[in-house]
Formats: sequence, C-alpha cells, structure tokens
Amino acid sequence: MIAAHIVGASGYAAAELIRLLDRHPDVALGTLESESGAGMRVCDVFPLLATFRMQLAGSGAVDAAAQPGDVVFLAGNHEVAHARAASLLARGARVIDLSDAFRLHERANGAVYGLPERYRDALAHANFIANPGCYVTASLLALLPLAPYANDITQIVIDAKSGITGSGRRPALGAMFAEVDGDVRAYGLEGHRHHAEIVQEARALDITAPIFFSPHVVPLKRGILADVYVAFRPGFVIDLAAIRAAVARTYAGSPFVQLLDGVRPPYLPALEGTNDAQIALAARDGLLHVMSGIDNLGKGAAGQAVQNLNCMLGFPEDRALGTDRTALER
Amino acid sequence: MIAAHIVGASGYAAAELIRLLDRHPDVALGTLESESGAGMRVCDVFPLLATFRMQLAGSGAVDAAAQPGDVVFLAGNHEVAHARAASLLARGARVIDLSDAFRLHERANGAVYGLPERYRDALAHANFIANPGCYVTASLLALLPLAPYANDITQIVIDAKSGITGSGRRPALGAMFAEVDGDVRAYGLEGHRHHAEIVQEARALDITAPIFFSPHVVPLKRGILADVYVAFRPGFVIDLAAIRAAVARTYAGSPFVQLLDGVRPPYLPALEGTNDAQIALAARDGLLHVMSGIDNLGKGAAGQAVQNLNCMLGFPEDRALGTDRTALER
Amino acid sequence: MIAAHIVGASGYAAAELIRLLDRHPDVALGTLESESGAGMRVCDVFPLLATFRMQLAGSGAVDAAAQPGDVVFLAGNHEVAHARAASLLARGARVIDLSDAFRLHERANGAVYGLPERYRDALAHANFIANPGCYVTASLLALLPLAPYANDITQIVIDAKSGITGSGRRPALGAMFAEVDGDVRAYGLEGHRHHAEIVQEARALDITAPIFFSPHVVPLKRGILADVYVAFRPGFVIDLAAIRAAVARTYAGSPFVQLLDGVRPPYLPALEGTNDAQIALAARDGLLHVMSGIDNLGKGAAGQAVQNLNCMLGFPEDRALGTDRTALER
Amino acid sequence: MIAAHIVGASGYAAAELIRLLDRHPDVALGTLESESGAGMRVCDVFPLLATFRMQLAGSGAVDAAAQPGDVVFLAGNHEVAHARAASLLARGARVIDLSDAFRLHERANGAVYGLPERYRDALAHANFIANPGCYVTASLLALLPLAPYANDITQIVIDAKSGITGSGRRPALGAMFAEVDGDVRAYGLEGHRHHAEIVQEARALDITAPIFFSPHVVPLKRGILADVYVAFRPGFVIDLAAIRAAVARTYAGSPFVQLLDGVRPPYLPALEGTNDAQIALAARDGLLHVMSGIDNLGKGAAGQAVQNLNCMLGFPEDRALGTDRTALER
Repeated sequence: MIAAHIVGASGYAAAELIRLLDRHPDVALGTLESESGAGMRVCDVFPLLATFRMQLAGSGAVDAAAQPGDVVFLAGNHEVAHARAASLLARGARVIDLSDAFRLHERANGAVYGLPERYRDALAHANFIANPGCYVTASLLALLPLAPYANDITQIVIDAKSGITGSGRRPALGAMFAEVDGDVRAYGLEGHRHHAEIVQEARALDITAPIFFSPHVVPLKRGILADVYVAFRPGFVIDLAAIRAAVARTYAGSPFVQLLDGVRPPYLPALEGTNDAQIALAARDGLLHVMSGIDNLGKGAAGQAVQNLNCMLGFPEDRALGTDRTALER
Repeated sequence: MIAAHIVGASGYAAAELIRLLDRHPDVALGTLESESGAGMRVCDVFPLLATFRMQLAGSGAVDAAAQPGDVVFLAGNHEVAHARAASLLARGARVIDLSDAFRLHERANGAVYGLPERYRDALAHANFIANPGCYVTASLLALLPLAPYANDITQIVIDAKSGITGSGRRPALGAMFAEVDGDVRAYGLEGHRHHAEIVQEARALDITAPIFFSPHVVPLKRGILADVYVAFRPGFVIDLAAIRAAVARTYAGSPFVQLLDGVRPPYLPALEGTNDAQIALAARDGLLHVMSGIDNLGKGAAGQAVQNLNCMLGFPEDRALGTDRTALER
Repeated sequence: MIAAHIVGASGYAAAELIRLLDRHPDVALGTLESESGAGMRVCDVFPLLATFRMQLAGSGAVDAAAQPGDVVFLAGNHEVAHARAASLLARGARVIDLSDAFRLHERANGAVYGLPERYRDALAHANFIANPGCYVTASLLALLPLAPYANDITQIVIDAKSGITGSGRRPALGAMFAEVDGDVRAYGLEGHRHHAEIVQEARALDITAPIFFSPHVVPLKRGILADVYVAFRPGFVIDLAAIRAAVARTYAGSPFVQLLDGVRPPYLPALEGTNDAQIALAARDGLLHVMSGIDNLGKGAAGQAVQNLNCMLGFPEDRALGTDRTALER
Repeated sequence: MIAAHIVGASGYAAAELIRLLDRHPDVALGTLESESGAGMRVCDVFPLLATFRMQLAGSGAVDAAAQPGDVVFLAGNHEVAHARAASLLARGARVIDLSDAFRLHERANGAVYGLPERYRDALAHANFIANPGCYVTASLLALLPLAPYANDITQIVIDAKSGITGSGRRPALGAMFAEVDGDVRAYGLEGHRHHAEIVQEARALDITAPIFFSPHVVPLKRGILADVYVAFRPGFVIDLAAIRAAVARTYAGSPFVQLLDGVRPPYLPALEGTNDAQIALAARDGLLHVMSGIDNLGKGAAGQAVQNLNCMLGFPEDRALGTDRTALER
C-alpha cells in the first residue's frame, strides 16, 4: 500500500481526489492538510463526502508525515506548489502538482507534464508530475490526433465552456448561484493563463498555426466542452473518415478516451465523476470541428492526477477510475 | 450468475437499473425490453450510459427470454405491470415491480412490499416484490423509528420536494426545462396516489394520526427531500436524544440509512447515484421535524429494487450498491 | 419630485430598488451609498442594470445629501439600520428600513410595520417604516385571511422555499453555484430570526396556535413559495369556498395579491421582478393548505418598500409597480 | 389603435408577443389563435402571464377577424406561415412572420427581411416582414459593423450558445429539464437551417469569407450568446479602437444595441425580457472576437417583431419596448 497525502485538501479537486483515492486498492489515504479546514472532518467540509469522517490536518502536516515513496498531491494554488514541492521531493516523496506552477517548460523544474495520452512513457519514470489544466486537457485531447496534419492547419479557434467548479471553492461573487444561473459568461478577454500551456503542447506537435482560446462559464457544476475549430490551408480537402481513423489510432491504448460515432456530441453528465473524455467530429463549410468533453474535476484535475499516479507507480491506468466499464465490451 | 431482465427499459429508473445491475457480480443483464426504444442501443437511448452498447428488444421479448429463477424488473407503468406480472411469475421468474400496481394490500396479489428496512425477513422468502414509491420511501424512513411514539402522535404533515425525474421520461410540458427552471411547483392539490401508500404503512406502525402529504417539483434532476413534521398530544415532551436513539436503533442493521449528527440537513448531491438515505432531526416550538433525503432514482426506485433483489436472493444487501463506503469506518 | 436615497446600495434588494425607483414618475433617485462599491458605476456593480451609469457614493454620503422630506431606504443589515435611522429621522427624512432592526414591537422605536395589506392606514401617516422580512411577507399573506378562524386553528406549519438571493450578495460558500445547484437545503434547524416576526403578526390576528417555521434554500435565484399547513380543532369542518371568499374579501382593495382559481399553484417565474403575490388554496385529509408565492426581492423586499413609499406619500399603491397589468381587466 | 392578431399563440415567442403588445399604447390585442390551446385562457396556457385572462381562439379565427390595416403575427412554424400569409395579405392585413418561411431571398415572396438595424428604411414601407432567426440576429449584429473590413476577412467562426426556449414549446425529450440540466450540447453537426440565412446577409455586406456556424444548447431558459471569431488576411493589423468606433457608428441611431466598454462581456440576465442587444469586443492572438448577446425571445423573436411593427407603422422604434431606459442618460 502506498500512502497518498494531499496538501490543500479543502478545494473541489481535493474532494474528488479523496473520493477516488479512497477506492484505490493499492493506496491508503494519508494526511489531508488544509489551512482553512484544519480540525474539521471531511464530511463537514464537503457534504458531498457524507460518509468520510477523517479529520483534516493543519499547515505543514504533510511535510511531517510524508515518507520516501509516498505520493503527495499538491491541490492548492501555485504559491503553495512553489513553497512545498522541492522539500517534499527532497524527502523522497513523489509529487503530483495540480496547479499551474510547473506546467510550462521554462519553469518545470524537472516536472513531467502529466498528460498520459501523450507522455505515458515519461510518466512511468517520473517522480514529479505537473498535472495539466482542465481547459488544456480538453483542448489537447482534440488536438493530439491532428499532429499528422500539423502543416496543413492555418488557424485554430478553441471555444470552451466550463462548469463553475473550475474557478475553485473560495467564495467569490462571480461564482455565486445568483450570478452564474441564467448566464453564459465569456471571460479571459485579455488572455487566459491556460493559453500558453495549450500553445506549448500544440507546438510540440508541430502545429504552428495561431491558436485562439476563448473560455466561458456556463451554469453547471462540473464539465467542460471544448469546441475546437480547425481551418486548413487553401486546397486542403478534409477527409473526415481519415481524421476519425487518426483519432481512433491515437487513443487505441488509452482507456479513457471515447470516440463518439455518428453525429453524437459529447454529453457532459455522462462524464461527471469519471476520468473519461468524449471526442466527436464534424466537418462542413471547409472547417473541421472537434468536440472534446471532460469532467473538469475528473480528467481535468483529480481523475487525471490519479491516472498519473497509476502511470508513475506502474498500476493499470484505470485503477480506481474504471467503474461501470464492463458494458463497454458487450 | 442470475439473469436479470427489464421490461420498460427506456425510462429513467431503467437506466439506473442497467447501470447498477451491470456492476453486480452475481447478476448478468439479460433482455432489455422497450416498446419505444426497440432496436436502439442503450447508449443511444440514454446518453448518460455512453459505454453501454447493448440493444433494446421489442415488446414481449422478456416473456420469451425469462427462465425459471431469473429476475424480471417491471419498470413501466402499472398497466404494464398488471399485464405482465402473472405470466412471468407463472413461468417461474421472480418479479420486482417498480410501479404502484401491487403496493396496496387490497391489490397486492401476493407481492411483498419491498422496503427492506421494514420487511427484510419477508423479502428473503419472496418471489414477487412491489417496490415502494419514491416519496413513500423517503417518508417511511422518517416514520419507521417513530413507531414507539405512535399513540402520542396527533398530526403528521409531509412536505416533499422532488427532482423532475420522478415524473418520468415521457416528454411532457410540465417536465420541460423552460417550465421547471426557476419554479417550485406544489402539486397533487386534490390528492396524490402516494398518499394511500404512506397511510397504509403508517397504519401498520400503529400510527393513526392524520397524515397530510404535499409533493413539490423543484428544479433539480434527482433527489427527494421529505420534510416530515410531527405534532404530539398536549403534554408530550419531545426528547430529541431519545428519538435520535430510536432512529439509530431502527437502522442499526441497515447499511444505507445515515443518521446525520448535529444540525446537518440531508445533502441531496451526496445521495445522487447511491442507494443511501440521510435522516436528520430537529425539534422546536413543540414539533418534531424529521428530514429524510434520498435519490428518487436510487433508494426511491432502482437502487431499492436492486437491494430487494439482494434480499430475495440472499446476497449481502449492499452488493452492487456499496461503492465508496470504506471511508465510513475510519 | 421626491428624492430617494439608498444606504447599502450594493446588495440584491438595492439593485431592485434602483430599478423600481428609476421608473417611478414622482421620485428622483438621489444618493446611492455603498461602502464596498464606492466610486463604481451601478452597471459595473450590477451587470443586471446594464444601462445605469450613476456612480455609487461612499460611507456617510446619504446623511450629507438627505433633505427634510426625502425618503431614505436602509438596505444594509441591522447594524447599519441602527446606526443610521435615528439621525436621518432627526434631519426630517423619511426612513424605510429593509433590515430586521425595527420589525419587532419591543424594538420598533416608532417604526410602523410595513405590510400594506395589513397596516395600510397607519402607513399613510408614517415617516419611519420597518419593511417586513421576505419569508414573513409570504407567510402573513397566507395567514391574514384566516383571522376569522383564529380560535379554530390548533397548529400551523410553514414550510418555505426560497431562492438564494434571500441570503444576500456577500460571497459565502453556501451561496455558491456549486453548493446550491442540485440541492434542497433545510436550514434554521435551531430556529430562524423570521420566526418571531411571524409569530408577532399572527398573534396580532389573535391566532394563538403554535407556529412551526421551516425555511429551505432551493436552486433558483428569486422567489419564495410558502406552504402554510393549518390544522383545526376536532370537529371543525373546513369550508374551502368560505375560506376562498375570506381571502378574496381580505385582498379586495389590494392590487398585488392574486387569488388563484381551481388547482393552480403559484408560479414563481410569473412573480419575478413584480410586487405581486399569488395565493392558492387546497384542503384535504382534514388540513387547510395555503400556498403563497412572491418574489423575495419584490414583494419580499424592494417592491414592498416602494409600495410602502407610495402608501406613505399618498401615491397610488402600485405606482412604479404596475406594469403589464392592463390585461387583468379583460 | 391598430389591432394585432397572433396565429400560433401557444408558443414561447407568442407569449412574449402577448406581453409586449399588451403594453403598446397604439395597439390593441385582437384575436389569439391556437390549435392546441383553443378555448383556454392565456393565463392557463402560460402561467407566466398569470393576469391575462383573454381566451385563445381556434384554427382560422385570425383569418375571420383580420381587417385591412390590422397586423398579424405568424408565430407558428413555416408550414403555418406558408398556408396563411398570402390570404392575409390579400385581405389587406400586414403580416410579420416569425418563422423561417420567407427569410431567404429565393423564397421571400416579397417579404422584407426584418432586421431594423440593417433594413430600417425598407421596413418603413413594408406590409410583409420576415422576422430574422434568433441565432441570425445575434450573429448579424456582430457582423454589420464589419462591412468596411469585408475584403480583409478570411474566416468567420460563430460559436453560439442558446437557452432552450429557442427550440420551442412542443414537448420533446431533448428539451426536458433532466436532459438539459448539467449539459452543454453541440448540435447541428450536419448543418443548421440558420446557416444559410447568416451567409445570405453576410454576403449582402460583401463579406465573402467562409462562415462556420456552430449552435449549442446551454442550461438556461432564455438568452443567446454568439461568439463571433473573425480572422483577417495576413498582414492585416487589428485596430480595436477603430473597430469599436465602427460599431458605435453603425448603431448610433439604434436604441437597442449597447456597446459594452472595457472587458465587460454581455450579461444575458440583463437582456431577459428586453429587446436589447449587448456587443463586446476583444482582440488577441491575431483574431477579432465579437460577442453578441440577446434574449432569444426578445430581440431574437417577439421583441424584434414588435420593433418591426413600430418601423412599419411609423411609431418610435422602442415603443412598448423601452422600459427602464431613463437611467441611460444619466
């Protein structure tokens, strides 16, 4: 049994981590550290986890508890990540950071970018993983299969719609029910921190076309739909069957990415609480339209973090993430 | 492996049954019969069950498929139940009916009332079970522990709030988003078919006080909160600690009923997709207030139906229903 | 033109006040004071008021601006009301307080209780008005017509469901979209500050029966449905037609209270943005069920405050509140 | 007083028409015809219009009632429009059709395209108007000011998000609360009937670039946000201030189009129930992003239809549409 600790255990991603790790047969939940929730039970902090009676520990508790070989999830913001990662690694712990502190190459400090569908091999040898952003995960799962077409792509527009949990659990006017309900809110009009992350990974696929990223908040709790619109050079003929085959090939060994058939779009409620992604394709009027749906707290955060743990420790990738899947084969 | 078939497989309760039965280690999903969905795949009928590719069969298919010892869930309306139950039983199948066809004594036709927390022993010997209504389940879980006070109770008011899936999946104006969103709708102003069922079971507890039942639709998909207000005879002193102890005693051997401590009310999102119920208690101004929360499609329908299957077949009561529960003991 | 000022101009009730007063032909919006929003334009504080470009003033601005005869709305909490009311009255301003500072007799300090359907005459001579609570308004509109039955009533249970704006605009975990969506939350399990206010006004109707008040938050922005369950002494026969007539009589001269016919329950979206109330009646199983619906920010707060202004200043009661009403007479 | 009749009076747009026309000082509501609602009162068909007690008439009633000079709104589908328009025009009635029957040039049959911000002059002389589609209105309000840049534009992607009322009031699985809540649904993957309409009007602006239109259903009742992404020829420098000036110039005489300043995106709740549109602008990463928000039942349907009535009859454009606007000038 591997001990797993969490720093920043009172946010939405942490709640999902606790839920998932609890059902992992090879992992034992260790110390759950939270500044704001110290001393409270998990069920009191998160009514969603009604049966979890463990107590949250105070600041610094994970440093005291973490043993060599343990896994520590950093589920706070990037300041927390910067303050804690180095010392935990120095103690021999493995670290999976869910913030954006170490995602960009120029400040990765040795962290492997934790998108298993792309960096599975490197993750198997990692002890320090930068878990991708939620918008970035949805966007990249749409773009990975397009690498063969990199030179033909001339423009990419990503219009992404996210549930409100993506903005965190700290009370803020913009996240209140009375402000979110009934609206679709475009934001990041002067740029969004996830843009550079998307661009970095697209460039690594040799996609050099400009990428426009446009995030929105929609009135739902969980889920991201990324609509990725891809324009090609004049004269390029979009062969949807070939692109469909490329998607299937890209994700042949990836248990979580579903390629939807026909004209079925992603359905976000089907993804809630899972680490799944749904990809759908359409083409018309000279453009390719790739739809990519995930749970922003699942494949977009905690689910992917557990997938990364599995990659890092050599467990099957879907351990603790693989419920309700037997019907797939029928 | 026991084969489980479903008649009426295109409703919300059926979707939940399919999901639960699929993960039951001792049950194999058999024939899924649906008049409206015949020939379609489960994933096309229910985008929520995105990975289920089984095909729905047409009318009568379950009769042809059911073998002695199989379990058949009747998930259609009461007409379907009346038309199908007898012949299926005659063929040796076990039948669990989710409609209200056989719930009242005067027309039970031998069906055992399927509330395991009350009739666990009888269910162990049943081959025909009438699964309780969703409102009734929530209400009765609040009332069962009050049997010792039956003679002291003078009036019961049940104000229940339900998610819209309780009204079924057949398109209807009153279930449309634009009609449900933003409203709290009182209905059943001339009576509701669940009232007689609540009264029958309350009388079986020797509670003879009048019971007023007031259902509401609230803008959520799943979940019922039943607020049960109990007035007592003049002079009766409400001993909340004693009542709390009575609740704990009543549900000591019942894995799904959680008694919440302090002033924590039920939290419906924590119950979604589970067979759990949450009970909370309050008393002030001379009244007892019992809150009872369930998922109307879980403990209120499909979850309880699987629990009944487990009771009937001698499996542990929480088989296929018991995820995420290890944290309970910590 | 009467100048109307607002203290505490950055809350939800204040936004509604601004919107309503702006269309009042006899009132000119004066100083809008807000500690948190000082210096901002109304449209930046409230995206709902997109075309309002007035600037909010800082603390104390209303005291400096208010002239004798002006009307000041106190739209902050009770501390603000206590701190500001006396000096404003001393300067000759008329004060309408929306907090609960002066609603109870023992601390009214001369304020008239601002329920026009009950105290219309007193309000005509008032210069200091305590605007009722939102739950209380909904509850009392159900109870006022029952005064003739006061001696027959033995128990009242009020189960009220409110939109989240009732809890204010200050960011709080319990008001966030991700906490409110999908739940129906019972609260006030140890009592609610509105209970005493309901009891006070019921006692003034000679209703001496115990009153149990049970508030809930439901996932909607605006609106309250109060379900009022009334039990009568043994032997009392509920004459629904007579009670219906009593309701009609009570509200004969009240332009905002609609008595719904047949089995039509209140419909909260129809009340949004209005000062209207809808009353519906049902009786069965020995109980009377009165449903009362309002917009918690309309008749439950700002709308009623403007109605009180009209009463106080001798304007028709529905001035600035009477849109879309010509169809009534057809 | 001009008599205004409605054919197809039981849909969402019709409800909004009834509400708006009722407050029009120069218009008297005439016959409201509905096949499904014949004989019912408006308040029973639409609980939102609680105080409207007029009765709906049956099929053909408007033909019998319409006099020369009357205005008839066709608020049914395109079959209804085709069946009824010609004979009503022949009788001397003016016709405003809200369906897509007459919007495209090749089948306009003399109808003027009813976008006043573009065709104001022609509408002043019209007696037959094709009211634009909701998505089209939102999209075109974003594109009209870009006519001066027509030759520089190389690609347009329109990602539009709509409330569910856009799909009508006829009960359908895809419009039910339990299917819409919690999802963002991309649709029209094989094309959408609004695409040709957008293209026609863009071409009339000399915009020849390819236009990709991608509609979505989001979990809200009313409102459309159209995100319009505009790519330009290589070397073109986006001058946001100049574009902002072009938008202001385009809508200088248009009372309903608000150009938002700074980085404020459209806020759909502020548009609900109005005929307003909000336009916001952003530019980065080589692309222009125009956001356009409307109420799909307001400026996207009934509001614009009343605006067209005003244009056609020579009334001020905002008559019956101009509430709450005095604050604009402050």
